[in-house]
Amino acid sequence: MPLVVVGSVALDSVETPDERRENVLGGSATFFSYAASYFTTARLVSVVGEDWPEEHTRLLESRGIDTSGLEVVLDAKTFRWSGKYLKNMNDRETLDVQLNVFDQFNPQLPESYRRCRYLFLANGHPSIQMNVLDQCPGANMTVADTMDLWINVARDELLSLLKRIDGLVLNDSEAKMLTGDDNLVRAGHAVREMGPRFVVIKKGEHGAMFFSEHETYVLPAYPTDDVVDPTGAGDSFGGGMMGYLAEQDNVEPKTLKRAMAYGILTASFTVEDFSLDRLKEIERSDIDRRMEEYERMLSF
Amino acid sequence: MPLVVVGSVALDSVETPDERRENVLGGSATFFSYAASYFTTARLVSVVGEDWPEEHTRLLESRGIDTSGLEVVLDAKTFRWSGKYLKNMNDRETLDVQLNVFDQFNPQLPESYRRCRYLFLANGHPSIQMNVLDQCPGANMTVADTMDLWINVARDELLSLLKRIDGLVLNDSEAKMLTGDDNLVRAGHAVREMGPRFVVIKKGEHGAMFFSEHETYVLPAYPTDDVVDPTGAGDSFGGGMMGYLAEQDNVEPKTLKRAMAYGILTASFTVEDFSLDRLKEIERSDIDRRMEEYERMLSF
Repeated sequence: MPLVVVGSVALDSVETPDERRENVLGGSATFFSYAASYFTTARLVSVVGEDWPEEHTRLLESRGIDTSGLEVVLDAKTFRWSGKYLKNMNDRETLDVQLNVFDQFNPQLPESYRRCRYLFLANGHPSIQMNVLDQCPGANMTVADTMDLWINVARDELLSLLKRIDGLVLNDSEAKMLTGDDNLVRAGHAVREMGPRFVVIKKGEHGAMFFSEHETYVLPAYPTDDVVDPTGAGDSFGGGMMGYLAEQDNVEPKTLKRAMAYGILTASFTVEDFSLDRLKEIERSDIDRRMEEYERMLSF
Repeated sequence: MPLVVVGSVALDSVETPDERRENVLGGSATFFSYAASYFTTARLVSVVGEDWPEEHTRLLESRGIDTSGLEVVLDAKTFRWSGKYLKNMNDRETLDVQLNVFDQFNPQLPESYRRCRYLFLANGHPSIQMNVLDQCPGANMTVADTMDLWINVARDELLSLLKRIDGLVLNDSEAKMLTGDDNLVRAGHAVREMGPRFVVIKKGEHGAMFFSEHETYVLPAYPTDDVVDPTGAGDSFGGGMMGYLAEQDNVEPKTLKRAMAYGILTASFTVEDFSLDRLKEIERSDIDRRMEEYERMLSF
């Protein structure tokens, strides 16, 4: 099954303790769709400016990603993000954000996308996320991401969104902020009680937790000694997870758990280099090999 | 097989965001031996003062713990520790330490302990830990814990100790401090290259990592919504892990991994109440039931 993702496409400048990269390909929908492309056809909805290097579009298309929903706006600039990772590589500072063309982004899904059954709403204003939901009335698996900004400035809209989606994916600090509870198990279930059928809390280098009415579990991150740039890890997690669900066209609890693991493993490649550089080198078989290792690691 | 543990027995005063307890039973050897007692006979070596409530000794003995190595010093006071947990319940401040009788602790193992094959050196000065090693020449599984203090003030002695033990257990922050590397996978292997055959990095609410020459793995913590007091979790982890190894009398990689899981699960009970209050309520069958759940959680 194809999978629609609505989110940002950006040019990132990233500084780590060891290196710096300027204007590399980034954005939530970029990482998500590239990660998902190992599992299914991802249909991208986003916007860029006139400065957008066409080679990036060709890179996405080389993985079978449908870019007919990528709008190019003339006389405008692409969204730019600049950030710096601290020594622990888990915490980061945002140095600069230039929303540019993304500021007025009002996603319109191409007609060919509207009957899609799997839909991911990457981080964005919850009102815009709801507008997208309205365009996909037949979707049977809708998952959204969010961030601290929307919890603070658009809480009511976020709460309305939560009543309309199947799943929410968010960071540990965001789950604590949204619920006011520092215990992640309680926080996860509290978010679930706000509406979604399931909640996934991403814990960065510590893996991810899953919450549904009858299930609570945590899966660790794949232990890698080679973290070069964590940018895009969370969106790659989402792309791997949703990509696997769409590929299997099945949203049973057992498939969801395996999808979580695929999300974790896809993200474990992303962090091994800047931008999409590591993902560009791998095939589905590399993810599956890592999955075999991961399953061995967790059995005793 | 019996298991010898050398470490502290203390009276703790603990403050959490919700509650406060004064002068409750604590200390590394206390939590370790009580946790180990679900698996094997723990033989305790420690020291207390004249103020020691005899009922605490009886509590340990009620679980079959051998307290013949617990020295009572007249005209002296028991070690006291006082600490306060921050809102996240993972970080804590030490408010006060009164070493008292523990300051001059020079452990002498009773004759009956010296042929013990499983030995745990709870956190202490590495020179003293080495003195204990000298008293157990026949031990075939020696594991030590350490802390930031010894990494800072007794680094050379710690490095000597590391060449003489089978395993080292330490916290994530300590592993980073000892190696100067913020990536835990690299840090774990760097500690292993300092001498021990294996290294365990404890990550608190995020579980634990294992490193040997041919293995690297991470197991998550058991997700609990009921963290009341994390004091003693690390030592309970050690006690569950070593207790299971001693019970099985087997130190193969497969047994070590299962032992890690038992350590994690035993500690998951400890944090559900102050002091030993939660452990006092459970039987081995409760740990085994949680193990079944944990194995289900990690299979997909």
